[in-house]
Amino acid sequence: MTIAMERAPTRLAMIKNTLRERIASGVIGHRSKLPSERDLSELFDTTRITIKDALISLETEGLIYREERKGWYVSPPRIRYNPLSRSHFEKMAMEQHRQARTALLQVKTEIANGEQAKALGIDSICPIHIIERLRYIDDRAVLFVENCLKVDLFPEILKYDLTTSLTHLFTEQYGYHTQRSRFEVIPTSAPKHVAKSLGLVEGQPILKICRINYKQDGELMDCEFEYWRPDAVMISIDSEG
Amino acid sequence: MTIAMERAPTRLAMIKNTLRERIASGVIGHRSKLPSERDLSELFDTTRITIKDALISLETEGLIYREERKGWYVSPPRIRYNPLSRSHFEKMAMEQHRQARTALLQVKTEIANGEQAKALGIDSICPIHIIERLRYIDDRAVLFVENCLKVDLFPEILKYDLTTSLTHLFTEQYGYHTQRSRFEVIPTSAPKHVAKSLGLVEGQPILKICRINYKQDGELMDCEFEYWRPDAVMISIDSEG
Repeated sequence: MTIAMERAPTRLAMIKNTLRERIASGVIGHRSKLPSERDLSELFDTTRITIKDALISLETEGLIYREERKGWYVSPPRIRYNPLSRSHFEKMAMEQHRQARTALLQVKTEIANGEQAKALGIDSICPIHIIERLRYIDDRAVLFVENCLKVDLFPEILKYDLTTSLTHLFTEQYGYHTQRSRFEVIPTSAPKHVAKSLGLVEGQPILKICRINYKQDGELMDCEFEYWRPDAVMISIDSEG
Repeated sequence: MTIAMERAPTRLAMIKNTLRERIASGVIGHRSKLPSERDLSELFDTTRITIKDALISLETEGLIYREERKGWYVSPPRIRYNPLSRSHFEKMAMEQHRQARTALLQVKTEIANGEQAKALGIDSICPIHIIERLRYIDDRAVLFVENCLKVDLFPEILKYDLTTSLTHLFTEQYGYHTQRSRFEVIPTSAPKHVAKSLGLVEGQPILKICRINYKQDGELMDCEFEYWRPDAVMISIDSEG
């Protein structure tokens, strides 16, 4: 028993190191498909279970990801993201030589739930606009965003094209500038609707970012709940901005 | 097949919701032990596998954690951490009414590895001081830190008590103040030695923070690699500081 427990990680580590090295050296390029689990278990002369353990561990590390019913792929580089800079998602992607795209999933005006009300500092019986969007980098869904807007601050906002930058819209149509942001980064698990949109399994790890934005007069304007694929992003902040 | 796949999450969701509600309402308090997996499976009249799935999912969410050979416990509240403020770990904990403790694991002077050399902006054949410490909140190991110091900037540092605040030591003994910090937050998996120290399984999710610090004259002084238990921390930043 003790021997088996000590040997198992060594074999696992060897398989992981080999795959890691092949990916790092570019032998298997970004977004290429790995051999099937069956082929890998033959290649490494080990069980499907050991291969699966190695793949799941590399997935958590962020090196590979799975597409349902298709197999395992090498992860593209992480997007560098500074939640303090209210830069457009598209601009951020472009600066990193990546392609961005936004899909509008749902728009609704309803009573804020507990979490939303707390973030916006409002009574929970207050209606808010909720804009759910899915953002893609190089055609891979990496970010599920829920924007929550105070209804009275954003009259008629739902008539605009909501697939573009909301920050831009806030400035152009309402004259609002983000003067201050507060945000929290929470490693947690993906709620069901988020997991589904991002092609993850419910309960898989996710990086949640809650951001609260204030306009130039200091008034709380809106909040966002971002759910990032954990392998698609790294947060990068410099105290000198 | 389709029916089974649709039913399974519903049962899982029901079990998770019940446990979540019991934890949120305080019926099961922080750090209390959950009933055994066997008792839970009897309680919910379901299989051990379903119970295990529910528990692992709540673990990823950050609500519960396991202690090897002991069982499942309710997670204490997350520590709020601002990596931009170079506050002492002890001070941060105290302000949040928590107990902090630091254990020195290892001190060594050796050639920087690739990641360390890159962070410090030095040649990889350069020796550095590496200080490995484990930090506890309320007697639970939550943070594994590796501090990497440029040898020539910190003569004789290894003779001091390294279980206290290094920031404090830098100021008191060397007159260095952190003028600027850059950091990256990366959701990834725990390397073996880190996992072991934190009581995690190798390859489990972890929140890695790499921080690079510059002193008052703008010179790069030191870097840190922090590995946080993902359920023990939330990063909290305000653009107004």
